[in-house]
Amino acid sequence: MKDLHYTCQWGTGKRWGFMATETGMSRLSLSDTDKLARDWFVETTKSLGCSVTVDAMGNIFAIRPGREDGPPTCAGSHLDTQPSGGRYDGILGVHAGVEMMKVLNEHHVETAFPVGVVNWTNEEGARFPISMVSSGVWAEEIALETAHNLQEVGGGSATMKSELEKIGYLGTTPASYKSMPLAAHFELHIEQGPLLEAEKKKIGIVKGVQAYRWYTIEVLGRDAHTGTTPFSARADAMLAACRMISVSHDVAAKHSALASTGILTLSPGSVNTVPGNVKFSLDIRSPQDATVEAIEAELKQEFSRLMSNEVTKGLDLAVTWKTDSISPATHFHGDCIAAVRASAESVTGSSSLAREMVSGAGHDSVYASRRCPTSMIFVPCRNGVSHNPEEFTTAEDCRIGAEVLMQSVLRYDKS
Amino acid sequence: MKDLHYTCQWGTGKRWGFMATETGMSRLSLSDTDKLARDWFVETTKSLGCSVTVDAMGNIFAIRPGREDGPPTCAGSHLDTQPSGGRYDGILGVHAGVEMMKVLNEHHVETAFPVGVVNWTNEEGARFPISMVSSGVWAEEIALETAHNLQEVGGGSATMKSELEKIGYLGTTPASYKSMPLAAHFELHIEQGPLLEAEKKKIGIVKGVQAYRWYTIEVLGRDAHTGTTPFSARADAMLAACRMISVSHDVAAKHSALASTGILTLSPGSVNTVPGNVKFSLDIRSPQDATVEAIEAELKQEFSRLMSNEVTKGLDLAVTWKTDSISPATHFHGDCIAAVRASAESVTGSSSLAREMVSGAGHDSVYASRRCPTSMIFVPCRNGVSHNPEEFTTAEDCRIGAEVLMQSVLRYDKS
Ligand SMILES: NC(=O)NCCC(=O)O
Ligand SMILES: NC(=O)NCCC(=O)O
Repeated sequence: MKDLHYTCQWGTGKRWGFMATETGMSRLSLSDTDKLARDWFVETTKSLGCSVTVDAMGNIFAIRPGREDGPPTCAGSHLDTQPSGGRYDGILGVHAGVEMMKVLNEHHVETAFPVGVVNWTNEEGARFPISMVSSGVWAEEIALETAHNLQEVGGGSATMKSELEKIGYLGTTPASYKSMPLAAHFELHIEQGPLLEAEKKKIGIVKGVQAYRWYTIEVLGRDAHTGTTPFSARADAMLAACRMISVSHDVAAKHSALASTGILTLSPGSVNTVPGNVKFSLDIRSPQDATVEAIEAELKQEFSRLMSNEVTKGLDLAVTWKTDSISPATHFHGDCIAAVRASAESVTGSSSLAREMVSGAGHDSVYASRRCPTSMIFVPCRNGVSHNPEEFTTAEDCRIGAEVLMQSVLRYDKS
Repeated sequence: MKDLHYTCQWGTGKRWGFMATETGMSRLSLSDTDKLARDWFVETTKSLGCSVTVDAMGNIFAIRPGREDGPPTCAGSHLDTQPSGGRYDGILGVHAGVEMMKVLNEHHVETAFPVGVVNWTNEEGARFPISMVSSGVWAEEIALETAHNLQEVGGGSATMKSELEKIGYLGTTPASYKSMPLAAHFELHIEQGPLLEAEKKKIGIVKGVQAYRWYTIEVLGRDAHTGTTPFSARADAMLAACRMISVSHDVAAKHSALASTGILTLSPGSVNTVPGNVKFSLDIRSPQDATVEAIEAELKQEFSRLMSNEVTKGLDLAVTWKTDSISPATHFHGDCIAAVRASAESVTGSSSLAREMVSGAGHDSVYASRRCPTSMIFVPCRNGVSHNPEEFTTAEDCRIGAEVLMQSVLRYDKS
């Protein structure tokens, strides 16, 4: 915990309490503060005897040798955060991996094969708008070029490649599971939801991740004067976008799924001009791929209907959909799930303090699982709050999670 | 028309056609391009024999002496534009005033009292969010300090005072009708609505201006993860704002009034974070003050209802209203209206080519009318489109309007 809070000096976010550590984090991927956290990661793991490899996406692999050569069993997560995020999402998983290295050294543990800890780049998708993009390139599910050319949100000109170069983390090793194969991938993460806390469980044994898709929707209307343009002569892109966001919520609710809009920009942006152009993000999620597809189809129909003057009481508008990313439903590997279950029972001393669950959020383990056996370990977080400065997990729950992570890695290595 | 298009080199906006003059304008108040247009105005009116006074709001009064001393009868409008505006809104009225000076000189016309042309500062309210703010200070209806401290929209640090200083237009004359009294104020403007064109009329005899109010609404919810936070655990400020904007449209429609949202900002602004904070502008208009008040009251109730979890299906949210400006319904002066009616009949040679109307948009004439007899002259604009680069009025219609303006000024001066 000391190391974790120490590294949160780089990218400290909004304060929410009086204690020194009671702030959020704002450490966008490949920013100057992300560089400082990376430098710490590289130095620390090297000083613990790891060999460190940086690939062409800035993914950092710190590997500790075993009795025999071969692909390492790794703990992995990410050091980047949301613009208004907390101290645990991603950060906890990387620090638990580094701590594992310390414990193995202190206890002179020799593993059968190498073990490692990985820091994946831009997991959040907050700065460069594809989440888990760099584990996606490693898995060869996303093209290197697509990822390198990803532009930062908000209209800036920086790309992933330009920022990797700028902070010195554009590695020479190809970003691919072929160059850097893993034996297995385990990830400790806060749940980011309310279930473990509500049921007083200590560990979530994560069996998979729900499906999700991200879109950018653009509505084209006509700039017009707010004082002189009757509703019947308007093509009000803002009103149409509002009705769309409303209906996306209602349709998702009907399917027991989720739909959310986190970004909206409009133009020209003047109190007395009806906006002629609105763009907004749409994030649709469900454990079933078919449900996400059904919602997309239904919303495409609904949005078209909303474009017509019968609904907006003015002129017709135009709408376009751009699909930014598709993350299908993921099912983790039975062997890794079993390793987590056995470790949870051993660490908590009970089989009733853990429960199986499906993750609502995407994680680098989604792409890792495409190329090696994978599972995840969740720990509770206060009020289920995440992507919020007040995100919080007790030191005791972090310790339990880190022990389950280490045991899972060792069990898998042994098997 | 040559002068008008010449000065549109300063702040040229979006191109919409192939001809040299087929672009919009983007000349925000007190910007560097506004300074260049102002410099042209000062030099030109001085060269026409006017004495020029700049007041503490940067309002520029160019006065041509008459046979006797006394307050001038003025033509006034504004040279600032919307961020995505056209070549006529405001600009036409100032240029017609300058043209009047040329015609009076060429024809050696001596007026009874002085006549003038005024360029009012920040009429649009697009950069500094109170429209007609500087005629408002002149009328002593808005405090100088309030106006000087107005901050530019979009989070910049510039204030009206800092920008007046920067471009050299912070005059030493007090901004007040007491220091700079006017005998009367006439304003030529494009209609910005569809009526004149639809009815094939050439001139609108403007009897008054409808009431309007501007608000900033802030919705406070809670930042949360879009993938892990069930609807029941959300306080989604974006969804709530969308439902509010929808309902504001519906309530205004019920009252045959207008409601519009031209600005919306949210935070933190990440695809996978439910926004915890949304701010948006609301512009409500009706010819009756009582209707604007009734809509405000109804929306305050509706918005509160939308804040409760029965509607948003999550946690409760909080909403605050800030009133940014109030412009009550305005009724112009009978003498000025009569001067415009007589001039329209004389210029068009018919009483059937003009009609009386109420303006949907605010104008500096609103505040001028609080301190001197005032009226306005409208000319048609294509499709009723304004606050849009494609805003367009034919040269012939501009000429007719300018002649009616000059005749109205001369008639009033004579009377
Ligand atoms: N764990 C997490 O916040 N991942 C970001 C990708 C997502 O939005 O699910
Ligand atoms: N004429 C004009 O566009 N004035 C700006 C103030 C308003 O929004 O009515």
